[in-house]
Parts: sequence; structure tokens; C-alpha cells
Amino acid sequence: MAKEISGLTKRSENYSAWYNELVVKADLAEASDVRGCMIIKPYGYAIWEKIQHMLDAEFKKTGVQNAYFPLLIPKSFLSKEAEHVEGFAKECAVVTHYRLKSNEDHTGVVVDPDAKLEEELIIRPTSETIIWNTFRNWIHSYRDLPLLVNQWCNVMRWEMRTRLFLRTSEFLWQEGHTAHATREEAEERAKMMLKVYADFVEGQMAIPVVQGVKSETERFAGALDTYTIEAMMQDGKALQSGTSHFLGQNFGKAFNVQFLDRDNKPQYAWATSWGVSTRLMGALIMTHSDDNGLVLPPALAPVQVVIVPIFKGSEIEKFDKVLLPLKERLEKRGISVKYDNSDTKRPGFKFADYELRGMPVRLVMGGRDLAAGTVEIMRRDTLEKETVPFEGIEDRVEAVLKDMQTNIFAKAKAFRDAHIYTCDDYGEFKERIKDGGFFLCPWDGTPETEAKIKEDTQATIRCIPFGVSQDNLGADMVSGKPAVKRALIARSY
Amino acid sequence: MAKEISGLTKRSENYSAWYNELVVKADLAEASDVRGCMIIKPYGYAIWEKIQHMLDAEFKKTGVQNAYFPLLIPKSFLSKEAEHVEGFAKECAVVTHYRLKSNEDHTGVVVDPDAKLEEELIIRPTSETIIWNTFRNWIHSYRDLPLLVNQWCNVMRWEMRTRLFLRTSEFLWQEGHTAHATREEAEERAKMMLKVYADFVEGQMAIPVVQGVKSETERFAGALDTYTIEAMMQDGKALQSGTSHFLGQNFGKAFNVQFLDRDNKPQYAWATSWGVSTRLMGALIMTHSDDNGLVLPPALAPVQVVIVPIFKGSEIEKFDKVLLPLKERLEKRGISVKYDNSDTKRPGFKFADYELRGMPVRLVMGGRDLAAGTVEIMRRDTLEKETVPFEGIEDRVEAVLKDMQTNIFAKAKAFRDAHIYTCDDYGEFKERIKDGGFFLCPWDGTPETEAKIKEDTQATIRCIPFGVSQDNLGADMVSGKPAVKRALIARSY
Repeated sequence: MAKEISGLTKRSENYSAWYNELVVKADLAEASDVRGCMIIKPYGYAIWEKIQHMLDAEFKKTGVQNAYFPLLIPKSFLSKEAEHVEGFAKECAVVTHYRLKSNEDHTGVVVDPDAKLEEELIIRPTSETIIWNTFRNWIHSYRDLPLLVNQWCNVMRWEMRTRLFLRTSEFLWQEGHTAHATREEAEERAKMMLKVYADFVEGQMAIPVVQGVKSETERFAGALDTYTIEAMMQDGKALQSGTSHFLGQNFGKAFNVQFLDRDNKPQYAWATSWGVSTRLMGALIMTHSDDNGLVLPPALAPVQVVIVPIFKGSEIEKFDKVLLPLKERLEKRGISVKYDNSDTKRPGFKFADYELRGMPVRLVMGGRDLAAGTVEIMRRDTLEKETVPFEGIEDRVEAVLKDMQTNIFAKAKAFRDAHIYTCDDYGEFKERIKDGGFFLCPWDGTPETEAKIKEDTQATIRCIPFGVSQDNLGADMVSGKPAVKRALIARSY
Repeated sequence: MAKEISGLTKRSENYSAWYNELVVKADLAEASDVRGCMIIKPYGYAIWEKIQHMLDAEFKKTGVQNAYFPLLIPKSFLSKEAEHVEGFAKECAVVTHYRLKSNEDHTGVVVDPDAKLEEELIIRPTSETIIWNTFRNWIHSYRDLPLLVNQWCNVMRWEMRTRLFLRTSEFLWQEGHTAHATREEAEERAKMMLKVYADFVEGQMAIPVVQGVKSETERFAGALDTYTIEAMMQDGKALQSGTSHFLGQNFGKAFNVQFLDRDNKPQYAWATSWGVSTRLMGALIMTHSDDNGLVLPPALAPVQVVIVPIFKGSEIEKFDKVLLPLKERLEKRGISVKYDNSDTKRPGFKFADYELRGMPVRLVMGGRDLAAGTVEIMRRDTLEKETVPFEGIEDRVEAVLKDMQTNIFAKAKAFRDAHIYTCDDYGEFKERIKDGGFFLCPWDGTPETEAKIKEDTQATIRCIPFGVSQDNLGADMVSGKPAVKRALIARSY
């Protein structure tokens, strides 16, 4: 297959190969020698750190506090909530022993059979069980509520087919868990956190999302309602980017978390949980990037501006004299800058590398620029280059960064909106779904119809979107029965 | 046993009970239902977050970048470095299966025998092995060096006797791992990171530390040198608070990490690793706190100032009018403030609770204060109360916070210095060590002597301290042979 200068397969040739190559070549992550577990490299982790810090601040504004709960969960905890165990107990890492010993010829270590645990421990696939087991001791009165906690941690779900960031056995995430005195308050919290996610993903990650509620089939195991944000990738597939669950009293009852209400009557606590993970990194990469490499929204780029002088030998001193102070001036404005005056790599190589890594703005200054008081500015999203006066370049850079944040969101949104279709005919649907896109279709509300669509087309109901008219739905496109919802259907990651 | 108003056992009666009670009553952490694993509660986690953020910024100033490596390590990796496996492979959590299934009567789940891993996986007790296995692919030339990475994560070491923060099976920490082209550069980095730890622990945590190098016996498994900071708790015992290891080429050789040097010759990379953990929380609590509860250095207190009005019913409005703006003015200065105008708890209860939780400054305003334009200020370290003019209270608060940070360090240092003894006589040593303290003693440098001291007294060589005269040492106090070092010996946590 033809490759770009970036060395990447073109998206149009093989979108999947393009993604896999980009993640590795842009130094974001790589596979480890442990099946399904990834290594997040410094450049990728720097983006994740930005995501963490921004989201964490938003959580705290809503009164959430961070805490930390154990990595390991007793096997029996998983069985306490009937649906939860179906969803999570199956594919998980099981700790059965707590000691190794030298083998007989002392060439290695083996599991010590005498160190078998009485009850096996599971590496958390999610922490509702251990957290609600703890909440029982923290919640006694309505005065202890609401309880709003979150943890940033690693979790593990044994996946057979893995892809960096999108689906790995171990991943990093945050999981928020809240307990409330009333159903209304819990439902409101679940919706509030979905809005926090949507605002962050659209505002900072520049990824437009459809907000909605999952069908019963697609709900989190143990939830009464799962709210979701769904993003569209450039191949028209959906990527579920964050979910928030209204758990009702399921975990309150399973773990006997009762409180005395204002009338001194015992009640079970109402629950929510909500999470986003390193999967967001996959969404970020796939939404904006191009055949030259990564495109990052300036808000999340670890380095926002790279400055490259073009020089020979000792000429560099003249460039340093004007460009180092520029770096400082930009940094004073809160812009992160890399000044690359190294002479071990040629400019062409540097340019390709910075494009591959998605540095939003590139400033290049050659000898003629230096003499003329100009500088070349390139923006990564459009690849437009322009030679502009060096004087006042800080304002220009700031404006470009701001415009880029808006522009890449607008671009992604225009693409997404152009690929959302209303479709009432199943024949047409089956044909068109092959090319990707989101389809708004009348649905009779039954899991049977949902299963048939999945079987026929691999597409699933991503959500019942908020803000889409639910009037005059007509007939379900598959069963012909009266439709009760207009559902958003797509193939997905 | 008599209890203080705090409900805590007195330190003088049972220091160990006092600590255990304080950790739980001050809402810092609690035991979980998973043996040896703790739950870090929101108030405790807020302190840990401050430690994280401050240390992380210091690491980054020295060029370190964060990354993330897998939780699970193939069993065989541990055997590759001969000493390392002795130190870490023994007591660890072993993952042997990757699936559960419903039991026969569908009442629970059991381990699926068909889902046995070919090679067992270990939950990381520390990550040298998996990281150096990765570094092999990242390091090819001297241009790739130094490589400076760190991760914030959870680790697990199966402990038989656990205590909250001090020794738990799972704990949170950071582990830095660096690779260098030369021995000198690696040694310098190991010492540099020890200094970063010492400056942080003394400056922000207000805990004085002795810096030094470990004896061979006490070294990290696989290190050529282990540098340490040792803090003295109020019972005179030592608490190892951070370590930095010069690992030589041991991991470079074990994982075949070679690079081409400037002369194009292959060389093995030189390594360091360094870490601090949630154990620091234990050091923080035990160094400063008193029989009334926690004492926190203002730099690490999640809430630095609590404001309590004393009022009846609707009087609160008058207090709100002057105290809410005060809160804002303090917050503008970067001071974190809690304004407690709740009427569900009596002032006496609030005072005891805030003392227990170690809020550094308490401002109390009653009706008379309101009329007279005064406010009562109390500082947690000395428990001194003073009524001062309300006008200009912000300056006063800022000054008290600053003074408190200095004062609690000075207090801890005075205590520590008064309990460091020079001792050349083993009979005297054996008698005095029972009361705690750090002993500087002449040592012949042999592990035999070290072992005898430990057997006789439970005390160990904490380190060979930097900056202690190593001249005219005389005879080893145990063996009578010529001493080669003056060692710092103490009982420890």
C-alpha cells in the first residue's frame, strides 16, 4: 500500500491500519509483552494527564471528592448483584495464590501450592461492589447523603481482541460513585455527570457527541438507566466515549446500605456511577487526525507551538537571540512551547515529525526571515502556511490556537452531521450502513428487533438520543409494528 | 485507658493504639474487607493528592516525564535479575486464571479451570522488570539517553502484618526509572532524586530527615547502592520515607538493554529507580500529631482555615454578611477555607472535630466579637488562642500559616536532634535503644555485626548518614574490630 511521507497507511486505504500505525508512530502507546495490556508512552500520557486534570477540576466543582478503594475484590462480592455478575464476573483476572517459591533446580520461580487463597480475589473490572460494601459503613442518616466520591485508577477486563486505547485488558479510567437519599436526586446526578462529560469532550477535546439513553440490552449490568455520549469516527462508526448510570437501589439492596430518613424511617440508598477511560484517547486520535499524523485540539496538546530555526553551524546564535525570548513571551501567556535548535536532524525531518505528533502551530525562521523580520507560521489542522511579521507574532499565535480549537470542532461536527441519516426502510438501512454513519430509525422497543439488526448488520442501538423528535414515528423498520422510539443505530468500536 | 476529648488513646499510654485510632477517627483511611488492603477516605486522599501534585512538579523540573506500564508482570520476568527475584518474587499476588463461570446450582461463580494462564502473571510489587523489558525497544543510541520516566500507580506486596499507610498489601506510590549512558550520570541522578525527596519532605511535609546510604543488607534487591531518607517518629523509631537506587548495569544486562555510544560501541545502559509511597502519610501523621488529633503542615492541609460563627437561629445572617466576604478574601490569597455556619452541631463539637482533623487555623466569632469588631484566632500546632481585630485578619492568618509551617518543622527537628546519640558502647546501646532514638555507632562494616545487633535489639542500620564525620571511628561496638563507618542505628517501622 502507498504510504504518506508520515509513513502511515492512508485512511482511505485502510482506516484500521492507519489508526494502529499512528498510535505507535506518534509515540502515544505500544503493546506490552503482557497480553492485551498496553504501555502508555510519555507523549500519550501527557495528553491523558491533561484530560485527567481538566475533568478532575470539573468533578470537584460539582462537590465530588477523590478517594481510593482496593484493586482486589472478593469473588463473592460480584455475585451479590444478580445482573452485575452476569456482566462482569466472566472475563476477569483471578488471583488464586499469594506466594511464589524457587523451583527445585533454583532456575526460576513457581507458584507455591501452600499459598492458596481461601477465597479467590478478582482484579476490579469496575468497583461498584467493593465501594457499596464500604458505603454501608459510611451511610447511616440522610445527613450523610449525598456521598459523592470518585477514583482515578486502573481496571482490568480480560479482552480477547484488543486494540491500543480502544479495547485493552487493563485500562486507566475514573469511576465516580454516588449515593443519594432520593430517586430524583440520583437521576439528576447521573444526568449532571453526562453533561460534564459532554461539555468536556466537546469543549476541550473538540469532539461532537450525541447524548442519549441506552436501550435495555446495552445498559450497564445492574443499572436502571445508562446515559451515554456517542462520538462518530471518520469511518462513520460510533465510539461510546463516556457513560453515566442510574443504578436505582440495586446496589443499596445488594449491600444493605440503609439510612434513616428525616422521618427516622430506614431507606435503601439510591446510586449512580459514571466513568470515562483511556478510550477517550482513541476517540481523540480517530476524530481529528489525518494522513500526515495526529491532529490535536490545542487545549490538549502537550506542546502547542514548536519553533524551528533553519541555520548552518554558528548562525544559530543569531536565531537563539530572537527566538529564545519569543519562547519566553509565549510561555508567559500560558502557551507551551518547544524550541528545536538541534543540529542533528534536518528541517524536513523535523517538520514531518512534528506533523506526525500533531503540534498545533509551527513557526519556522530562516536567514531571509531573520533579515526581513518575518516568520513562517503553519497550523496543523489546515496545514496552511503563511509568512507574517515577526513583530506581534504572539498575538497571531494565540489567535490561531483559539481558532484551531473552534475549527477542528466545527470540522468534526460538519462531518458528523453530514453522516446522520433519518431512515425508515430496513432494506435501505442494510445497504447504507455498510458505508458507516449514524441512522435515526423508528424502533418498536423490543430486544428481538434490536438483536435482528445486530445479527443482520453488526450495527447496534447506540442510544435513544435526547432532543430528537419522538412524534409520528410510524412503523418499526424491521418488525413493522408500531414504533415507540426513534433510535440512533450504528456500527461501533 | 484514659481518653482525651478527641476520643484518642494518649500517645504516652500507647503510641501504637493512638496512631491506629487517629487514622480512622480523622477520616484518613480504614481497613477494607480485602486482607491487608486499605481504603483511603476522601480527607486522607486530599492530602495524598497534594503530595502527588507537588512532587510531580518537582520531578518534571528535572526533566522526568510520566508514563504508564502494565499492572501485571509475567512470572519469568522476575527471575531475570538474580537478586531482584529473591527480594520481590516471594510474597506477591499471583493471577492464574482469566475467567469465572457460574457454579452448578447458579448461586455464585467459580474459577473456570479451562481458563488457566499458560504463564502466571504477578501483580507488580515494583516495575523494574517490565520497564527494562520495554526500555530494550526504546534505547538504541546514546542519543536516546538519558531516559527519565515515572509512573504514579498501585503496587502490591503480600504483607502478613499490616498497618494503615505504614504497611499495606496494596499501596499507592510513584516509581521513577531512568536509563543513562554513563555510571557517573546514573549515580548523580540517584542522588539528585534523593535530594528532591529530602527537600520536599522537609520543606512541605515539615519532617526533618537524615539522608544517607543503606548498608548492603538493607539495599533494594538488585541495587548497587540505595540512598534513603529516614525520619524519626515521636516514639523515637525510624521511618524510611523514600529511597533512591543506583542499579548499575544489573537490569541493563538482565534485559539486554544496549546502546551504541559515541564511538559506535555497544554498551549496557545504567539504571536508577526511586520511589515514595502512601507510607509518607504515616510519617506525616506520626511526626506532628498530638493527643487532640492530627496536626498538619499548612502546605498540605486540604482546608487551611475554618471559620466558625457562634450564633442562635436567624442571627446567622449578620455573621454571614461579614464572614462570607472574609472567606472570599482569604481564598483570593490562595488559602483554602471552610465556613461552617451549620446549626446541626454545637460549637464545642465542631471545635473538637476540627482539632481532630488538624485544620491549621480556626477563626471563631461570637456576638460580642461581632459588636466589638474582633475575632478569635486559634492555631492548631500550639493550640494558642487570641482575640484580635477583625480588620486585617487576612494578614494575620497568612502570617500564622507561614509561621506554623516553620514552627512544626522546628519542633520536629528539635525533638529529633535531642534524640540522636553518639554511642560507642554496646552495653549502653542495648539499654538505651529500648527508649527509642537514633544511635550513631562505630561499625566494622560486616553483615555479621549488623545481624547480631538486630537479633539482640531488633534495631537495624538505617543508613550511613551523609555529613557525619567518618574519622577516628575507633572499634566496632559489638565485635571490637576496627570500625570502618559510623552508622545510624534505630528500631524502625
